[in-house]
Amino acid sequence: MSLYVYKFGGTSVGSTERIRSVAEKVKKAHDLGDQIIVVLSAMSGETNRLIALAKEMQAQPTEREMDVLISTGEQVTVALLSMALHELGCDACSYTGGQVKILTDSTYTKARILHIDEARIRADLNAGKVVVVAGFQGVDGDGNITTLGRGGSDTTAVALAAALKADECHIYTDVDGVYTTDPRVEPKARRLDHITFEEMLEMASLGSKVLQIRSVEFAGKYNVALRVLSSFKEGCGTLITYEESQMESALISGIAFNRDEAKLTITGVPDLPGVAFKILGPIAEANIEVDMIVQNIADDATTDFTFTVHRNDYQRAKTLLEQTCIDLAARKVTGDNGIVKVSIVGVGMRSHAGIASTMFKTLAALGINIRMISTSEIKISVVVDEKYLELAVRELHAAFELDKVPEIA
Amino acid sequence: MSLYVYKFGGTSVGSTERIRSVAEKVKKAHDLGDQIIVVLSAMSGETNRLIALAKEMQAQPTEREMDVLISTGEQVTVALLSMALHELGCDACSYTGGQVKILTDSTYTKARILHIDEARIRADLNAGKVVVVAGFQGVDGDGNITTLGRGGSDTTAVALAAALKADECHIYTDVDGVYTTDPRVEPKARRLDHITFEEMLEMASLGSKVLQIRSVEFAGKYNVALRVLSSFKEGCGTLITYEESQMESALISGIAFNRDEAKLTITGVPDLPGVAFKILGPIAEANIEVDMIVQNIADDATTDFTFTVHRNDYQRAKTLLEQTCIDLAARKVTGDNGIVKVSIVGVGMRSHAGIASTMFKTLAALGINIRMISTSEIKISVVVDEKYLELAVRELHAAFELDKVPEIA
Repeated sequence: MSLYVYKFGGTSVGSTERIRSVAEKVKKAHDLGDQIIVVLSAMSGETNRLIALAKEMQAQPTEREMDVLISTGEQVTVALLSMALHELGCDACSYTGGQVKILTDSTYTKARILHIDEARIRADLNAGKVVVVAGFQGVDGDGNITTLGRGGSDTTAVALAAALKADECHIYTDVDGVYTTDPRVEPKARRLDHITFEEMLEMASLGSKVLQIRSVEFAGKYNVALRVLSSFKEGCGTLITYEESQMESALISGIAFNRDEAKLTITGVPDLPGVAFKILGPIAEANIEVDMIVQNIADDATTDFTFTVHRNDYQRAKTLLEQTCIDLAARKVTGDNGIVKVSIVGVGMRSHAGIASTMFKTLAALGINIRMISTSEIKISVVVDEKYLELAVRELHAAFELDKVPEIA
Repeated sequence: MSLYVYKFGGTSVGSTERIRSVAEKVKKAHDLGDQIIVVLSAMSGETNRLIALAKEMQAQPTEREMDVLISTGEQVTVALLSMALHELGCDACSYTGGQVKILTDSTYTKARILHIDEARIRADLNAGKVVVVAGFQGVDGDGNITTLGRGGSDTTAVALAAALKADECHIYTDVDGVYTTDPRVEPKARRLDHITFEEMLEMASLGSKVLQIRSVEFAGKYNVALRVLSSFKEGCGTLITYEESQMESALISGIAFNRDEAKLTITGVPDLPGVAFKILGPIAEANIEVDMIVQNIADDATTDFTFTVHRNDYQRAKTLLEQTCIDLAARKVTGDNGIVKVSIVGVGMRSHAGIASTMFKTLAALGINIRMISTSEIKISVVVDEKYLELAVRELHAAFELDKVPEIA
């Protein structure tokens, strides 16, 4: 008998019809003799509807009250799924985050889970019930309702899987797994049977929006085996674990990309200690997130400094940087908000040389100018002009033979 | 400094605009230096929307899950009102029934309140906050969410007023008080400044839908001064207390009526001990509520037995009674689903003779045939043909001079 945590997102419970499908899927697994905990999001659109109501009441809604409000969304879906399970003759019991209880800190709208009581859930599971838990929410030490922030239902699922030592945590989404790259850009993209946490983190932070980063970090930290799979079609999805696959020996696992980048450069900066802080300090204070950072010595006395930000923050960042340019007596500020980032990701990089040069050779052969390069242990990112995105992704996909199932090492 | 509990129903919080009006009303009272607890229902229509969702999932929704589901309606309104109060610069804090906590038994969908923790509310009040509590809901000893049944928000308000020894419990509705009768039937109907609990109970159970019976019983039991008043216009409403008014010496306080009645008669029933049970037992088992019951001896050996039920239950009750007629070897079953009940109510009856005869004389002068009579200490009810309802109510209103403010006794 195995214990599984199943998590279904808003699209998967977006209508009573879909909730019924979820109930059927859950019952099928339960009938096989496994113990099942289900974690649900709110029906798609519901959280946004509630936020809109809140904003009608208060320009900047009080965060404690916001959590009281939006936590109702998941409470509705867990009750409805339990009813659907009962209708199928499958005993089930729903719980809010507070009822479980999922104890969090008091940081309303983005609380962190501190502890999960497993006693009540364990008792229900042992009594043969399916346990249905409202995702995204918890309760602080004083009994105030908290929420975990966007994607918090994934975090709830992983945290429950960790607390109850589940065999696997299944994240059901509208895609059937993690792909070598976005199939809308490269139709030959292939679903990966297996990926490591580290690769998944790099893929997620680079724009493959399958899973929330926090839940992957959490799963990694507590060594919870995660599986991403489709709510709507059969299949075994993609398993995410610590272990590198015995079966697959790919050099790289996938190609991630991010369209919404912009690049800013300040040139001729006097090369003195603390200059990076002087440049990025005002950006950070304005709550603008900086992604890639590259610094080059231009000549003996000055340096050129380039970084990327989200395209929405480009104008604000540029204005701040122009002030810094004056303050530091630097030469000038240039920028480009028509760039994208393309990254190759894979734990195979650790043990194989020549991957970077394959990437650069492929892009060079296409006449694609690389504007920035940044590397980590398991990824190489390049910034290129926006118009080359699809071409670069497809040709890199082919160059690394990602469309083919790798042979056993 | 006084402590008030204000309860607003679904219509009063039916839109964000109306929630804002409630916030303004509450703030005004709070600014006068009084302590305010607000109890809210769900936005009008919301509970029915949720029930419809439930019925899509399960033909007979599991009651525990139904309570998890529908309790979200009030949770939404308390959060929104708290936000609206904050927007007005008035400190406020919302609580679900479980957070307060309002401890109930485990009778899902119609739980009874066992105990209310006042500590948390008292602390907030003393800190100058408005406390906003979700009506209609509580939590059982195991932390399961319960609801109190239709009109449960009134019960929550009264129970909080009792627990915290509030000076008055204000029930804001879409009418501006309790009237001598329904103004849609008799435009001369007059708002009563004051009515006793007993009168209110008789008025409520007879179809004046201003307050839920249970909340009036509760208020009477704990001696909570109740005031019914309008959410939408100014005015001091109707105060409901134990004391008979010093100012008003009316013989009767009002005329209640109920349109949805049906009458069933079984004649020629052998007059043996236990016959009433044999007749009403199957009706009760079918969960059909019986209102008036009249039994007359027809001759030495048999009896005629008449009772009224809600018109919706007429056919089911008639079918059951026909089987009973066969079982008891009674003569026959007759019925009429075109009848109404008209009642005069007043504590003045206790000390004044001749009230019944004034009623009967008035109806006789109009040629209205009385089909059944039933009396209690402070009310007299008659059943008449449906078509006479408005005429009977108006003429009785005039006969007892209910349009005039009574002189001081």
